[in-house]
Amino acid sequence: MLITSVDNKKIKRYAMLKNSKARYKERLFLIEGMHLCYEAYKNNLLVDVLMLEDTNISFNYDREITYVTENVLKKLSNLTTPSNIIGICKMMDNKEIIGNHLLLLDDINDPGNIGTIIRSSKAFNVDTIILSDNSVDIYNDKVLRSTQGMLFNMNIIYANLMEIIPKLHDNGYMILGTDVTSGEDVREVKCSRYALIMGNEGNGVHEEIKVLCDKNLYIKMNSACESLNVGVATSILLYELNRGHNE
Amino acid sequence: MLITSVDNKKIKRYAMLKNSKARYKERLFLIEGMHLCYEAYKNNLLVDVLMLEDTNISFNYDREITYVTENVLKKLSNLTTPSNIIGICKMMDNKEIIGNHLLLLDDINDPGNIGTIIRSSKAFNVDTIILSDNSVDIYNDKVLRSTQGMLFNMNIIYANLMEIIPKLHDNGYMILGTDVTSGEDVREVKCSRYALIMGNEGNGVHEEIKVLCDKNLYIKMNSACESLNVGVATSILLYELNRGHNE
Repeated sequence: MLITSVDNKKIKRYAMLKNSKARYKERLFLIEGMHLCYEAYKNNLLVDVLMLEDTNISFNYDREITYVTENVLKKLSNLTTPSNIIGICKMMDNKEIIGNHLLLLDDINDPGNIGTIIRSSKAFNVDTIILSDNSVDIYNDKVLRSTQGMLFNMNIIYANLMEIIPKLHDNGYMILGTDVTSGEDVREVKCSRYALIMGNEGNGVHEEIKVLCDKNLYIKMNSACESLNVGVATSILLYELNRGHNE
Repeated sequence: MLITSVDNKKIKRYAMLKNSKARYKERLFLIEGMHLCYEAYKNNLLVDVLMLEDTNISFNYDREITYVTENVLKKLSNLTTPSNIIGICKMMDNKEIIGNHLLLLDDINDPGNIGTIIRSSKAFNVDTIILSDNSVDIYNDKVLRSTQGMLFNMNIIYANLMEIIPKLHDNGYMILGTDVTSGEDVREVKCSRYALIMGNEGNGVHEEIKVLCDKNLYIKMNSACESLNVGVATSILLYELNRGHNE
């Protein structure tokens, strides 16, 4: 099939998915580029593929590929130079907290930071990411791009952190926060069942959540530097906790 | 002094600094927000301060502060909601490679990544950052914001990496690259005088530079994850190299 008009009914419907509300209504989202499409396909989430007509790329898909013109791709893309392949994916249906290694994100705002954190979480064996209800939408195009497809391999849920943390504590998870003045060097901490909480870029973790932590960690660094980027800090903490766990 | 017009000569000159060429011609750049202004001031780089009139913030500056209207700040700002303080800084005059811990960046493109890397470099005691000539301008507003002021505490120079690496090698620096298949676990590597090379987000380190490395490193991670964000990978490597050095 070839679609040449941006007014085509299907294209108009897909273009709506650039809006977060429409995504959640349809339970569908857009991805761009071969790598993300391939990762979504591997995880059985890819429901439609739109590819530039007359291109020399190929995509091994078990359903019919819809060929489209450059105009149509432009209509669907969030990039100034659109990819020549766009995928439509169904949302994951994660509801359960699984595993011993949890990462809780308290209102992280920047899509690039969220994406980087999801990618690092997979690298360092986090089992479930729990985002506070006010966090950025993980199906936002910038988040998707910076996860490099690792989103599809990660169990991610949204929840009210104030409600969930006491339950996690009662279920034997050590609740880990961060504190540069009174924290323990993460290098010295070994913990086989944990829930690490990371806070907003500007404001850190909410005070009412901080008091729920069993232990606070810090990363040893030059005192001239007050803090690290939240994606970097989260990644180093997960790297160390994962290492402690393997030993 | 109060300036109310965006057509004021000084304001027009400062607004030109949003352009990279103008910055290098004048050897001046713009910064936004109290934190960056304070860091620039501490490092004797702040040459002028423009502050919103009738605001209740104060800034301890030893020269006259120029008060301006919201319109004037909007004209100078790169943000949709401008800060109520904007500073004019002179460029640093770094020319020498100093110290034993060098970080070389081979065409890193994303301003946020560069900023994050500069911030982490300070945290983990890098002495000099050398950027390839094609790298993004460090006085770009997005770089400046994501460094969180650490730019002013770091010795940063631009150079041709192909020319400089052999000289560093001859001067006793171990030239470190990265390689996920044949690298050594960075945890096992101790190195007191090094030059770590990190590559472009999409393409990695240029092939002709790769062959100049004395040793390649890798970060142990889940095999389902192909790679980390370059800011995260750089930060973890520096974190580990810094630790090895302190022991």
